[in-house]
Amino acid sequence: MSDPLKVAIAGLGTVGVGTVKILQQHADVIENRCGRAIKITAVCARSNKDRGVDLSGYEWFDDAAQMAVKADADVIVELIGGSEGIAKDAVDAALAAGRHVVTANKALVAHHGQALATMAESKGVSLNYEAAVAGGIPVIKTLREGLAGNAMTRVQGILNGTCNYILTTMREEGRDFEEVLKDAQDFGYAEADPSFDIDGVDAAHKLAILASVAFGVQVNFDAVHIEGIRHISSTDIEFAEELGYRIKLLGIAAMTEHGLEQRVHPTMVPLSAPIASVEGVFNAVVTDGDAVDTLMQEGRGAGEGPTASAVVADICDIARGIMVPTFGVPVANLKPSQPRPMGQHVGAYYVRMMLVDEPGVFADVAAALRDNNVSMVSMLQQTSESGDAVPVVLTTHETKESDMNSALKAITALDTVVEAPHMIRIESA
Amino acid sequence: MSDPLKVAIAGLGTVGVGTVKILQQHADVIENRCGRAIKITAVCARSNKDRGVDLSGYEWFDDAAQMAVKADADVIVELIGGSEGIAKDAVDAALAAGRHVVTANKALVAHHGQALATMAESKGVSLNYEAAVAGGIPVIKTLREGLAGNAMTRVQGILNGTCNYILTTMREEGRDFEEVLKDAQDFGYAEADPSFDIDGVDAAHKLAILASVAFGVQVNFDAVHIEGIRHISSTDIEFAEELGYRIKLLGIAAMTEHGLEQRVHPTMVPLSAPIASVEGVFNAVVTDGDAVDTLMQEGRGAGEGPTASAVVADICDIARGIMVPTFGVPVANLKPSQPRPMGQHVGAYYVRMMLVDEPGVFADVAAALRDNNVSMVSMLQQTSESGDAVPVVLTTHETKESDMNSALKAITALDTVVEAPHMIRIESA
Repeated sequence: MSDPLKVAIAGLGTVGVGTVKILQQHADVIENRCGRAIKITAVCARSNKDRGVDLSGYEWFDDAAQMAVKADADVIVELIGGSEGIAKDAVDAALAAGRHVVTANKALVAHHGQALATMAESKGVSLNYEAAVAGGIPVIKTLREGLAGNAMTRVQGILNGTCNYILTTMREEGRDFEEVLKDAQDFGYAEADPSFDIDGVDAAHKLAILASVAFGVQVNFDAVHIEGIRHISSTDIEFAEELGYRIKLLGIAAMTEHGLEQRVHPTMVPLSAPIASVEGVFNAVVTDGDAVDTLMQEGRGAGEGPTASAVVADICDIARGIMVPTFGVPVANLKPSQPRPMGQHVGAYYVRMMLVDEPGVFADVAAALRDNNVSMVSMLQQTSESGDAVPVVLTTHETKESDMNSALKAITALDTVVEAPHMIRIESA
Repeated sequence: MSDPLKVAIAGLGTVGVGTVKILQQHADVIENRCGRAIKITAVCARSNKDRGVDLSGYEWFDDAAQMAVKADADVIVELIGGSEGIAKDAVDAALAAGRHVVTANKALVAHHGQALATMAESKGVSLNYEAAVAGGIPVIKTLREGLAGNAMTRVQGILNGTCNYILTTMREEGRDFEEVLKDAQDFGYAEADPSFDIDGVDAAHKLAILASVAFGVQVNFDAVHIEGIRHISSTDIEFAEELGYRIKLLGIAAMTEHGLEQRVHPTMVPLSAPIASVEGVFNAVVTDGDAVDTLMQEGRGAGEGPTASAVVADICDIARGIMVPTFGVPVANLKPSQPRPMGQHVGAYYVRMMLVDEPGVFADVAAALRDNNVSMVSMLQQTSESGDAVPVVLTTHETKESDMNSALKAITALDTVVEAPHMIRIESA
């Protein structure tokens, strides 16, 4: 039996407390599994209030960066959050001191992953971040290890539970975005400032990380095309169902012959696609590899237990001596990501617009599509109640996004179009 | 860069050829990921026919056990199959010679896992078998590593693609078992002798392995309660849909306070359960842990690419120096499995019977249930066409299986019951 692995935990919020609980309550089984004990030696938080766990045996630090260097620890666990500031200082300090790091911090890894991985590698320590992406779902381990024999072609997922909860509730209850968001905030499923979640930034952080691991490319968060769910209306959701689709906020990374697509946006997926049935706060990641074909993993993407489960798994890997390059291959071998411009994206589209309720107005829309090489698949018109304007939706065949954008511009300019059209991308699976 | 990892492959069927292909075609990326090359040095099969891959650079063996000892190899990959005979001889020989073993052989691991793990441990080598359970789904890695911080409470899954294909097709096309089985044989989804698949033995092998890893118990295949799908009729499938269920052959292992339940049987799951939507040849494994909550992994459970993907991942783990105890903890620490007798199982039941079409006959059935402490939830009667007998189905509240069995015996004995009733267990998720 080896010496215990000593762990210092920075950040005692929900996930930090959850991690302490697991390491305390499952100490015996974890020692059994890892062949050595895992012992918390130090913790760090802003205030030493009662958190419902016994922290009395651990050295207390007020400063995470100081703990990262001074604690009697092999592993520094960073659960503070945020891409800059004390979280980054602590991780930088820990790696520079040659200590393993486990973090749940997607913003940090998405923005500074490359530099951090370089530092970890030069010091011969692990930088593990399973909890940063899709909470309890072991998707980083799956990509780095479980699918190591595959050339990945695509990875996509429902990466933000808040958005999925809101979209699910809007559909189930036929309610509008603002109303459901307020409920989600009351229930604790959404932050007081929800923009990171609902504007797609959180999902984009996770997607950039997934893309790096899946395709062996440098993390390139800035290249992610990001749209959130604010503009999704309950009308869109109803039309989607009528057309056989469900609307999900997906993060999609695809390796094409023209470069890497990374995009986060509301997406219509067929009702028959497994990911369409992933509802509420659940997350799911779908990976496509040339050998394994399609694999879907579905589970809880947030919360004390699931996220702490991923943190502890990362610690156990270190205890067991499992060391894998941060993004699956040595940093020097990560390729530049070569982003594919969004205008080059080819896909099907859904467009909703309000047209003046007069005979023949759709002919102008049809002409605008034709003039921009956009070919329609279907058109649905709701019966008008007011007599002034009527909602019309259409779906297209596969179209280049730049053509679609030109068509939308031409449609917006029509006198008979009452408000700017809303576009939602359609994915076949 | 370390020395190449040398691999000898025994068995050149579908999976063996798939493994060769991946290791040849992805040699560069795999070397990049593992930090060392993986080189095939030897292969072994019964005949040296053309298999569409270039085997010319590899030493040829006719005898797998001989190759296991004599090949210039660090890892012996066993893809022959079968719990006894040459597969077992080869694995025994490889482990005795202190060589790592990677196998896709569920029967071997289910029957001899304990002894093989003991040998591997004493020699300090890996015994990896990701491909033995659920094909391309990395469920063994998920349980051994990804969920290492959890006390697992249940693991269940669709573990046999042949059965799932048959049940899906029966439902979609309203056809009978025998007919669909024949099609499945013609399409290559079922073996000429299909009994291992359709009688549940294959799923039971996989379940016994999953139970061991999930709960840290000795593999106990003999304790698995096994029922196949031969007795499922299209009538059952129709009734199931009407009642809001779908019929799946599930393998279920649950740790209860009265011992370990291991059972493979047709199961009615609610249509809303994610596993209900896993159709066709796909497999899925649902794991419940105290921290992670419910996690579902869905993918292809068989076939050249998916199974070879798992084999190669196991080899990559060895190349990277990742070594985890065979069943998650050292063999000496595996607990005896303490099977819970099936009669003690508590669950809900569906029963279909043919009753004489006379007024009041159901009263006798109801009395038989009452006399055996079985409480009904619903009863459905089809309208009789022949006038002789009518199909009646009922569902029960949670009931002890021994009580259910007594009730079924009493029902069978009734004069008004035309044929022995068929029982299908219902699971809430």
